[in-house]
Amino acid sequence: MIDVRDLYSDYRKYLNKEITVQGWIRSHRKQKEFGFIDFNDGTYQKNLQIVYDNKLTDFDSISKLKLGSAITVKGTLIESEGNQDFELKASYVKLEGDCMDDYPLQSKGRPTREFLREIAYLRPRTNLFNAIFRVRSVAAYAIHKYFQDNGYVYFHAPIITASDCEGAGEMFQVTTLDLDKVAKNGKVDYSKDFFNKKSSLTVSGQLQAETFALAYKKTYTFGPTFRAENSNTKIHACEFWMIEPEIAFCDLEGDMDIMEDMLKYIVKYVLDNCKEEMDLFDKFVEKGLIDKLTKLINSKFTRIDHKDVIKILKEAPVKWEFEPEYGEDIAKEHEKYITEYFNGPVFIKNWPKDIKAFYMKQNADGKTVAAVDLEVPGAGELMGGSQREESYEKLVKRMEELNMDKSSLDWYLNLRKYGGCVHSGFGMGFERLLIYLTGVDNIRDVIPYYRTPGNCDY
Amino acid sequence: MIDVRDLYSDYRKYLNKEITVQGWIRSHRKQKEFGFIDFNDGTYQKNLQIVYDNKLTDFDSISKLKLGSAITVKGTLIESEGNQDFELKASYVKLEGDCMDDYPLQSKGRPTREFLREIAYLRPRTNLFNAIFRVRSVAAYAIHKYFQDNGYVYFHAPIITASDCEGAGEMFQVTTLDLDKVAKNGKVDYSKDFFNKKSSLTVSGQLQAETFALAYKKTYTFGPTFRAENSNTKIHACEFWMIEPEIAFCDLEGDMDIMEDMLKYIVKYVLDNCKEEMDLFDKFVEKGLIDKLTKLINSKFTRIDHKDVIKILKEAPVKWEFEPEYGEDIAKEHEKYITEYFNGPVFIKNWPKDIKAFYMKQNADGKTVAAVDLEVPGAGELMGGSQREESYEKLVKRMEELNMDKSSLDWYLNLRKYGGCVHSGFGMGFERLLIYLTGVDNIRDVIPYYRTPGNCDY
Repeated sequence: MIDVRDLYSDYRKYLNKEITVQGWIRSHRKQKEFGFIDFNDGTYQKNLQIVYDNKLTDFDSISKLKLGSAITVKGTLIESEGNQDFELKASYVKLEGDCMDDYPLQSKGRPTREFLREIAYLRPRTNLFNAIFRVRSVAAYAIHKYFQDNGYVYFHAPIITASDCEGAGEMFQVTTLDLDKVAKNGKVDYSKDFFNKKSSLTVSGQLQAETFALAYKKTYTFGPTFRAENSNTKIHACEFWMIEPEIAFCDLEGDMDIMEDMLKYIVKYVLDNCKEEMDLFDKFVEKGLIDKLTKLINSKFTRIDHKDVIKILKEAPVKWEFEPEYGEDIAKEHEKYITEYFNGPVFIKNWPKDIKAFYMKQNADGKTVAAVDLEVPGAGELMGGSQREESYEKLVKRMEELNMDKSSLDWYLNLRKYGGCVHSGFGMGFERLLIYLTGVDNIRDVIPYYRTPGNCDY
Repeated sequence: MIDVRDLYSDYRKYLNKEITVQGWIRSHRKQKEFGFIDFNDGTYQKNLQIVYDNKLTDFDSISKLKLGSAITVKGTLIESEGNQDFELKASYVKLEGDCMDDYPLQSKGRPTREFLREIAYLRPRTNLFNAIFRVRSVAAYAIHKYFQDNGYVYFHAPIITASDCEGAGEMFQVTTLDLDKVAKNGKVDYSKDFFNKKSSLTVSGQLQAETFALAYKKTYTFGPTFRAENSNTKIHACEFWMIEPEIAFCDLEGDMDIMEDMLKYIVKYVLDNCKEEMDLFDKFVEKGLIDKLTKLINSKFTRIDHKDVIKILKEAPVKWEFEPEYGEDIAKEHEKYITEYFNGPVFIKNWPKDIKAFYMKQNADGKTVAAVDLEVPGAGELMGGSQREESYEKLVKRMEELNMDKSSLDWYLNLRKYGGCVHSGFGMGFERLLIYLTGVDNIRDVIPYYRTPGNCDY
């Protein structure tokens, strides 16, 4: 069996030879003596044109094959007189699986993305979603390749956990308790639960990844993470995949070097390996996408302190919806302004301590932490990272200030007692990256089966 | 900074040059005029010997550095007069992070694996676990590389799901309901739960993967799956990673071809890329491991029907604990016998319908399904797969026989109505593979932070 992708990569290799293809009918036109099938096998964006004529004994039955049906075709690849370079002159067409008339993907008109979400199990059969999920696959591989080629150890962080990384963040509870019985008995007995205690789905594998960084020097996670946030926005899903590298003997500057290098690598890899798909996005989803990404690869990312960003924002000739303030977070409008101001990606670093997580390295000024967010033009925050606090005493003090439970994180604290060292890491939401890479602006369209409040289909 | 791995791959490149290394002290011997540090940075099994002498002004403080401490060392790489080829003559040693005296990994004696499970966050710092989790990382990459190089699309199956793949299998429930309130109110109201219905952690991504196979032709999953089984065995964990390829236009024979090809590829990749680690396992964990794996790569896997296996077992001159029977599953002792009988891996195919899952292709005999298990010498069942039933009517009938809820799987059934075709797939538990690859026989030792009944630490 030959893939349509093989034909498009070098059709001359197969010219005038007999080949077999297997796939699906995208459209079908019949004439008196000829029939034309637009054939797609999912391996490539473009269709293969199949021509058959009434010399075939089963011409009549072939000519009745319906859109969506699965077929096997044998024939000779010939040069085409039509719009395409080549076509397959069929000597044999076999129906493998029929398609009923209520098939939702009829050829007339382009279905909306909202409609396709309702039939998510069929949408990878459309050109757009075929491209999106292929890019998802290739980008995932690029991430693994980048880290493995650079000596990182892939770490599978635990999914079910009894500790809460952020000290905040809404979590999903995981249980084998029979809730009907809980209701009936009028009490919750965690000693009867599967782990003999309350457990949840992880919101981040970072804390555990630090244990690997302090053993292997370089590690990364790539796995699903969960937030039970009741957010119905275009960029929030409650189940999403995250990449969290963690590096020992690496400070905040080194962290930014890696973030920049990794992002450029992934973008270049996808541009190089998904040309057809990227062309499709550039044409139909986000005009100028390829230019945007090419520019990113060739740009030097700006590095600037949070307080200097606030200064620029305050001095900007703009009427803000949210007034920028020292010591506070920045809003979407500020992110947008600052990437336009520097005409490229911007690392905003050294953030106010009070709005960042407990594990971040406390700077000498007593007010800021060695945290960094990467803002990219057209997408806002794409990654966040920090140097981690390596002082046992400072970390304990910070946890106490925040009324955090130290006992469940004793192992994490111990890392600072047993050969701890300067170390840093960052997190990148995989779907945020995909939104940036494809121009598809709704997270529901870059996850095969998305989970959002009230949605858990398939 | 130079990795110790770089030095061992070609130390002559660095000979008589000044280099900087960063890592941890594995052991430390001091003499009057010299000190020797066994230095390890986690990138390689072997240590780098560091030599320093009392010409250094801080000789006294260096000589007090403790095992487990993190250090930066500058010096010149020289040829060694001792057991190793090279050593680092230090000109500068800086303490990056001290190590307290209660550090559990002291150099005396080799800690047991049971003890190390109690301090799982430190065990990747030992040679054995450094090797195990590096092999885990490299094997994971080999899997991605195999499928990506062969044109498969990586599919992220949903983790939280409202459907139950096996129609059996204990599942973990996922909820945002406040259980204390459930107990107080005396009733469970799923309309208030996050997804407005009962949801669980996936036991398999196969059914969803089929939707991708029927769009892309070839797809694979690689993600965490969950079983809330109260099994305290060496090979059961309730959170484990699984690989589930799914291929359209592929029958059971084709499925076996892929299983065999994939396994040989992974084994070869790990042998080629983890020589030091495999040597360690061969020496200290399973004598003959490398021979076993090399033999696998070079063997042709036997393919035999379940009923013929039973015949062989029945005729065997063995007193069985469990008597082999036509129409029934086989036991561990049978698996062992049959791989020894054929002196290599064995595909057992065409299993009795009643002991296999609903979605498996029903054979013409009315009694068996086109299912296959791969049995490998020394590990038993490593993978299981099947051709999938592509007939809508047969699938519906089978689900009705098993009293399954069809409504939540309407999308799965529809795949048979909309251009369905012969397709097959299989599943491989990643940890089972790792047990086979490393010889480490307890699943708790091949997962960084394992989850078993009552265990949810870190």
